[in-house]
Amino acid sequence: MLVVMQSHATPVQIDRVLEAILEMGLTPHAMPGPTRTAIGITGNTGTIDSRNLEVLPGVLELIRVTKPYKLASREMHRHDTVISLPQGTIGGSSLAIIAGPCAVENEAMLLRTAEWLMTRGIRFLRAGAFKPRTSPYAFQGLGLEGLEILRRARERTGIGIVTELMDTDTADAVEDAADIIQIGTRNMQNYSLLRRVSRARKPVLLKRGMSATLEEWLMSAEYVLSGGNYEVILCERGVRTFADHSRNTLDLSVIPPVKKLSHLPIIVDPSHGTGKREDVPPMALAALAAGAHGLMIEVHPDPDHALSDGAQSLDFPGFERLLAKVRNLAEHL
Amino acid sequence: MLVVMQSHATPVQIDRVLEAILEMGLTPHAMPGPTRTAIGITGNTGTIDSRNLEVLPGVLELIRVTKPYKLASREMHRHDTVISLPQGTIGGSSLAIIAGPCAVENEAMLLRTAEWLMTRGIRFLRAGAFKPRTSPYAFQGLGLEGLEILRRARERTGIGIVTELMDTDTADAVEDAADIIQIGTRNMQNYSLLRRVSRARKPVLLKRGMSATLEEWLMSAEYVLSGGNYEVILCERGVRTFADHSRNTLDLSVIPPVKKLSHLPIIVDPSHGTGKREDVPPMALAALAAGAHGLMIEVHPDPDHALSDGAQSLDFPGFERLLAKVRNLAEHL
Amino acid sequence: MLVVMQSHATPVQIDRVLEAILEMGLTPHAMPGPTRTAIGITGNTGTIDSRNLEVLPGVLELIRVTKPYKLASREMHRHDTVISLPQGTIGGSSLAIIAGPCAVENEAMLLRTAEWLMTRGIRFLRAGAFKPRTSPYAFQGLGLEGLEILRRARERTGIGIVTELMDTDTADAVEDAADIIQIGTRNMQNYSLLRRVSRARKPVLLKRGMSATLEEWLMSAEYVLSGGNYEVILCERGVRTFADHSRNTLDLSVIPPVKKLSHLPIIVDPSHGTGKREDVPPMALAALAAGAHGLMIEVHPDPDHALSDGAQSLDFPGFERLLAKVRNLAEHL
Amino acid sequence: MLVVMQSHATPVQIDRVLEAILEMGLTPHAMPGPTRTAIGITGNTGTIDSRNLEVLPGVLELIRVTKPYKLASREMHRHDTVISLPQGTIGGSSLAIIAGPCAVENEAMLLRTAEWLMTRGIRFLRAGAFKPRTSPYAFQGLGLEGLEILRRARERTGIGIVTELMDTDTADAVEDAADIIQIGTRNMQNYSLLRRVSRARKPVLLKRGMSATLEEWLMSAEYVLSGGNYEVILCERGVRTFADHSRNTLDLSVIPPVKKLSHLPIIVDPSHGTGKREDVPPMALAALAAGAHGLMIEVHPDPDHALSDGAQSLDFPGFERLLAKVRNLAEHL
Repeated sequence: MLVVMQSHATPVQIDRVLEAILEMGLTPHAMPGPTRTAIGITGNTGTIDSRNLEVLPGVLELIRVTKPYKLASREMHRHDTVISLPQGTIGGSSLAIIAGPCAVENEAMLLRTAEWLMTRGIRFLRAGAFKPRTSPYAFQGLGLEGLEILRRARERTGIGIVTELMDTDTADAVEDAADIIQIGTRNMQNYSLLRRVSRARKPVLLKRGMSATLEEWLMSAEYVLSGGNYEVILCERGVRTFADHSRNTLDLSVIPPVKKLSHLPIIVDPSHGTGKREDVPPMALAALAAGAHGLMIEVHPDPDHALSDGAQSLDFPGFERLLAKVRNLAEHL
Repeated sequence: MLVVMQSHATPVQIDRVLEAILEMGLTPHAMPGPTRTAIGITGNTGTIDSRNLEVLPGVLELIRVTKPYKLASREMHRHDTVISLPQGTIGGSSLAIIAGPCAVENEAMLLRTAEWLMTRGIRFLRAGAFKPRTSPYAFQGLGLEGLEILRRARERTGIGIVTELMDTDTADAVEDAADIIQIGTRNMQNYSLLRRVSRARKPVLLKRGMSATLEEWLMSAEYVLSGGNYEVILCERGVRTFADHSRNTLDLSVIPPVKKLSHLPIIVDPSHGTGKREDVPPMALAALAAGAHGLMIEVHPDPDHALSDGAQSLDFPGFERLLAKVRNLAEHL
Repeated sequence: MLVVMQSHATPVQIDRVLEAILEMGLTPHAMPGPTRTAIGITGNTGTIDSRNLEVLPGVLELIRVTKPYKLASREMHRHDTVISLPQGTIGGSSLAIIAGPCAVENEAMLLRTAEWLMTRGIRFLRAGAFKPRTSPYAFQGLGLEGLEILRRARERTGIGIVTELMDTDTADAVEDAADIIQIGTRNMQNYSLLRRVSRARKPVLLKRGMSATLEEWLMSAEYVLSGGNYEVILCERGVRTFADHSRNTLDLSVIPPVKKLSHLPIIVDPSHGTGKREDVPPMALAALAAGAHGLMIEVHPDPDHALSDGAQSLDFPGFERLLAKVRNLAEHL
Repeated sequence: MLVVMQSHATPVQIDRVLEAILEMGLTPHAMPGPTRTAIGITGNTGTIDSRNLEVLPGVLELIRVTKPYKLASREMHRHDTVISLPQGTIGGSSLAIIAGPCAVENEAMLLRTAEWLMTRGIRFLRAGAFKPRTSPYAFQGLGLEGLEILRRARERTGIGIVTELMDTDTADAVEDAADIIQIGTRNMQNYSLLRRVSRARKPVLLKRGMSATLEEWLMSAEYVLSGGNYEVILCERGVRTFADHSRNTLDLSVIPPVKKLSHLPIIVDPSHGTGKREDVPPMALAALAAGAHGLMIEVHPDPDHALSDGAQSLDFPGFERLLAKVRNLAEHL
């Protein structure tokens, strides 16, 4: 950490800052310069609130240097985390594809989708039993019955289940039904939920919050890792900006820095990212080219009659065309 | 709702859209224009996913007209909601001031603060027993022990308690200890939590999400109202933008439209909004001038040694100076 | 355009709106619904300020339906615009690559770069003689001398010159030296400049403004087109958001809607988009995969000693490695 | 400036960075810590591109410490800049009010407005002769004829003229007609224009760019100051964010830090900030309460028939009501 003093700070003010740093059990390094003094701080600065120094007289600003995440950081863990499941691996050099409808709507439709996906070599099914909806009047998912349908789909087809957990009350049931537990965008900083899944025996797919910085996202991953669950998959799904040409602004440029700063796998959800079916294929290919470890894509047997997110879901032929392009691209990158 | 057709849409495409609207049980109104046709839709459009029409051939875009919130809307409820508590009222023409430390740190400090606030005529104390922190390694609050301290502070001083609820597991305890249950920024779209407090017998203070639109915020209030709890207080606390001169961008311009579109009271938290002690007074006064029904301000007996958010907390003399200005301004607006 | 009345609007208020529309020479279409009346407007609505109707009593809101751009729109011009220059074409199915240093620094370095690029099959050189810099104390470019150097580079190598125009005073000189005139991000809404280049006999490369919506960007293109210059190339270079992991947020998701709504070619500048040399290759590939018609990339013979933007410039070996990947990808998309 | 090394940086890498700093003529200060080394830099760091060090092997990141603006900074110039004009002063403890229509529409309307404003004690008239419009098909202002009308209004009434300059071609004419030259939002980083007005003998009102950080805004002021024109007035007019409840997001929270970091006066334009007539009064009052040195407000004798921005203009009675509140508030703050 670095304390920058004002150019007209007095020696007394500088001494007061040095003292305050010592009181915190840290080591100050004064660097007098031609126009001002800066004071470096070494020691364990992770736990102090930088703003407490910022308000001392004569201080211009305080700059944090070390990253607050540890277990999520590549500095601590040099090699890529690769998550191995019976259905396949996520991370490293493999390409993971997760596909399926927004929500579990009924057993027939879900089974049909799971079976069809398996014939196309897709080993992970996404589908929500619990749906976070902006409106209390919209379809909220089938709940426990939806989990039951997912369980049967896995039994019948062997497909891996990715499904969202919305609260601690349903955590046991979701953990039991899921192969990968999804934490949604709106819950990225729901710390009680993160603590619960840090004790789960299933990998966690952690979607980026609507306006989360890269650091905040990794800090949320840190909650899961620090509780003992080391299998976290990051999922970029678009952030909120002024731009109004798409539902969210898919931030593919986060992929290279995530891969530099962290060892965790990162996948991309172009369906939520764009919000429009026709824009999903180009952005799926772009995500791959940018270095994503995988894709999560909404597919529905009859998108025009889907109970939610139909406009951003591909139908089977559309998904099949995209899949051919994705596999072709993956071979030639 | 309005469907806008492309300028080169064919009559067959237009007929298909008219049909699709009828299938939904709604009434289409075709408006042929010189360059294109638009189709108005009347009926209960609240429940349909507009994007399902958007993907039909020949459709350029679909524009939603009616607001999706009902109970939160001033159209449904013309008069201001005023929330009456033994300690005072919030909403209408009164000015509510809620003050206190970020977190309950220990009993002595909390009691001292509560007693001092009461001598200054402040009737609501804010203080968190459960603290949502970006880092899993930061102080997370005293938990149930903190609630116990809050309960004793109320018994001893009569002050009203505003404290945050973070999950359903602790809902009974928080509901019992609080006079007003706070839902934090990161949980504005934690729908399980909103459903829980919609059944609480205490008013809910709903902070605006970091990147929530006005509509999303009112929809979250709608979750609470639609569950039967009609006492919701909105709290603006800064949103996330590109601007880096303050911790968040305090969006005071949301106050006039909130008051136009909704009957719910709206207060402002300039402490989180600015993140800097010295900027709290001007923004507190600005919030009042913009029409806020109240303020929530962080005050701490010794901010430089606070366990969290010390840099944005006022000390007692600072708060007292601000209070004098606030009361003077309230008289002259 | 559509006027939405409040649910409690009176018949007199509705009549007043119908009248106001007629006064504007347009045709109103009233659509009474169960909870409110909406009024469609047909006729040439492009020229009216929608907000004048918005303030009439009883009006809830006014929604614009038709797009305000005409010449830039694909509805008016179905086929892709392809710009043909002696050095190559931009748009359609070809892949345009523009490369070179941020600024013209001296003749030796520029010639060396131009010659090297030509040996690699790159036919367009980017380099600024006039540099818009945030600080008045930073290197501002060589000015007219820089243009002279660019002219000699073209004579010697035949490479096409892409260089920025900053003001009307230097327009004749830049138009003369350039094969493609670049309008920078900060000048996307410098309408005097846009009007000047609308009369130029050279194509215009129009960078997206830092916080421009897709519509505003196309409206700026419309300024150029409406003045008689039909050769406009759009260039995405990152927008400003809360995200701090890259210099700007490269918005690749704008590519599919641009290609849907407009016939103009769109290229991507991943160097400014990311601000970091190491992130340029993945984002360049992602841009291609998303459907861009070309790339503009900063290359410098010695980036560590560049006078500007060295940190985001590739060196020759780095560019060559990227080029191989780009050409391989282009073949397999 | 501070260079932060990676935790696993080698001594050779650290030495290379120390050397590079010395090569730049600056002084490095190594600070070895328990997990990593940081290197402080003193000397004149204003001119170096920090990113050149950032790309050296072993460097994690580079943090800039000193502010790049000098003349605009309060560190260099402790006392408030107060601009004195025959009509009144702007800055310091006085309250400046600038009012008038968006555009000069015709002589009768302008004179009527100027005369009426003078009777209300308003000494500065705003009105554009050159109008930057998003659409090339919208009213672009009366141009030179508009300047002539402004000149006559000043002669007849003595009111001070605030009018926008859009390009260097019309700079002499605008400088001649104006008492204060306005630089609009879209031109905040039009450096050719800033250099031109840095040589003008009239004060400059510099509107904040749509997505300008505080630092960029002050850097644009620095362009004007460094050219020898020390009379710059900053004007906040709303920034671009995701929020859609107002035309722009008025960022009043920028006022306290501007006043801390700079000596220049800052005023607020709530008309463009909100875009809605009814929201102008509360936000005008809030701006004052937040510490603004003045207000710029759109007033029109007949807003419903204004050629531009009618929806955000107050009529005379509306402005008079606001004026009473503003003056009352100013007395009691």
